Amino acid sequence: MLGMTLDADGPGPEVGFLKGHGTGNDFVLIPDLEGDLTLSPAQVRAICDRHAGIGADGILRVVRTALVEEARLMAGEAAYFMDHRNADGSLAQMCGNGARLFAHYLRLAGLETADEFAIATRGGCRAVAVEPDGRITIDMGTATTPLARAMPVVEAGGHAWPAVGVLVPNPHAVVFVDDLADAGDLRTAPVVAPAAVFPDGVNVEFVVVHAPDHVSMRVHERGVGQTQACGTGACAVAWAVAQQSAVDDHGSGRPGAVRVDMPGGTVEVRLASDGRLLLCGPAVIVARGTCRLPARCEPDL
Amino acid sequence: MLGMTLDADGPGPEVGFLKGHGTGNDFVLIPDLEGDLTLSPAQVRAICDRHAGIGADGILRVVRTALVEEARLMAGEAAYFMDHRNADGSLAQMCGNGARLFAHYLRLAGLETADEFAIATRGGCRAVAVEPDGRITIDMGTATTPLARAMPVVEAGGHAWPAVGVLVPNPHAVVFVDDLADAGDLRTAPVVAPAAVFPDGVNVEFVVVHAPDHVSMRVHERGVGQTQACGTGACAVAWAVAQQSAVDDHGSGRPGAVRVDMPGGTVEVRLASDGRLLLCGPAVIVARGTCRLPARCEPDL
Repeated sequence: MLGMTLDADGPGPEVGFLKGHGTGNDFVLIPDLEGDLTLSPAQVRAICDRHAGIGADGILRVVRTALVEEARLMAGEAAYFMDHRNADGSLAQMCGNGARLFAHYLRLAGLETADEFAIATRGGCRAVAVEPDGRITIDMGTATTPLARAMPVVEAGGHAWPAVGVLVPNPHAVVFVDDLADAGDLRTAPVVAPAAVFPDGVNVEFVVVHAPDHVSMRVHERGVGQTQACGTGACAVAWAVAQQSAVDDHGSGRPGAVRVDMPGGTVEVRLASDGRLLLCGPAVIVARGTCRLPARCEPDL
Repeated sequence: MLGMTLDADGPGPEVGFLKGHGTGNDFVLIPDLEGDLTLSPAQVRAICDRHAGIGADGILRVVRTALVEEARLMAGEAAYFMDHRNADGSLAQMCGNGARLFAHYLRLAGLETADEFAIATRGGCRAVAVEPDGRITIDMGTATTPLARAMPVVEAGGHAWPAVGVLVPNPHAVVFVDDLADAGDLRTAPVVAPAAVFPDGVNVEFVVVHAPDHVSMRVHERGVGQTQACGTGACAVAWAVAQQSAVDDHGSGRPGAVRVDMPGGTVEVRLASDGRLLLCGPAVIVARGTCRLPARCEPDL
């Protein structure tokens, strides 16, 4: 309990928030349309603390794109910028599950009224579509393979498997297994070798293929541990499954979409003919409230 | 993501809540003064889910004692009943950290105005005092020793130690160690033998004594795992430390109070001359909000 902590009856500025999640990947969403807030890493950690704070995997601050120096070039395309912070206070690039929640909020709040619009993120502008059933689809871009040609090998749960390396653009090692339980306790990071294939570390997905268009997966996210869901991981898995189907069937059996079941819920990854991966899934707001930001008594990192 | 989940835009009844904690032991507090709510175990689990819900160690429902069948006999002494549920949906008896938060709320909301009052819990009526510095003191009752005479032995982190058995009235095994790190990774339960000493399982505290009136501890709570703080555990530790001091100094050095540092914060346990243990510590409300209860689509357990 070192550093700053949240106190709703303390002297800090009051802010409104929403808590929500996309397939179990949860966020505190803070509307700050006029860009009045500056969130320090210590404040982010205090809010995301699961015992002494509100608790979340990260924060999504909603701000007009035109007011954000780093995003101003996207202002013509996307009205709102997703200022995404990780629970450890660091800046985040892009997260498919978070982007769905962000887009869901924009629609619910009436800030976007069309079924298709764009959002600005540190990973660039992203096209969003609100499906008739309320699910949200996010254009996750294209997948590529690591530069290193070596086939990575993943060890976990006393087993070893060859893996498929995929960049979305963050790094993933996709492992096809017979049983998701074979990966054992994913609170410990799987060992991936050779390390040179993924110089910045890697997320590891363990996948059971039920059909060419339906898989189940578990994931270990680098620096986090086992998580309930990973949007880019689901895209990496769908891409690897489609590549596999293309090889098996000489291209004829390549699925147009892959259903990916994760511990936190199910998403669908659509494989566009131009290579783009479209992530479609639910987003839910579970609560609305107010808190007071802790005073900025610590220097920013 | 099986069973019911929270949706702030769903059809369920809207309820107001507060989130707060006592030394990192966190709760969703739901004011329900007139007893309008019936919370099913599935609803409790949905609210306490740390990813798909608000997230907490448990729920504290605030209701007038006179309206609660099981608590009606306490209505003359305590105006409000603490309906405490564990995150798994089960009924809880009494929790020192939760009771502080509950009492703190009653004062903040103006439902109690005196500095000393009583609250009704499933563990009986408890005397509460609001200290001048805002900390809350709860009368935790007296400690006793297990009926079995065998000295328990605790194994953890590759070490084994003799332990002191204490009932507050829930069971604790207190282990004095040279270094808190010696207990290793407490995500795994320590092994306590002989099992007959604690037929209902046991919470295990590892303690480093800095002085007769100042200790640090880590705790593994039965059925939960490593936690940030444990109110009855702190009381058990203080009692065991005082017993030890009484033996060492023939009673002359018995401290009147013991400061107990835990990962989630610090409490003070006062040892009254009649044997009662008074737990004094902070309670903080971090956020206020509203959510909608999930529809009761599952049968109660």
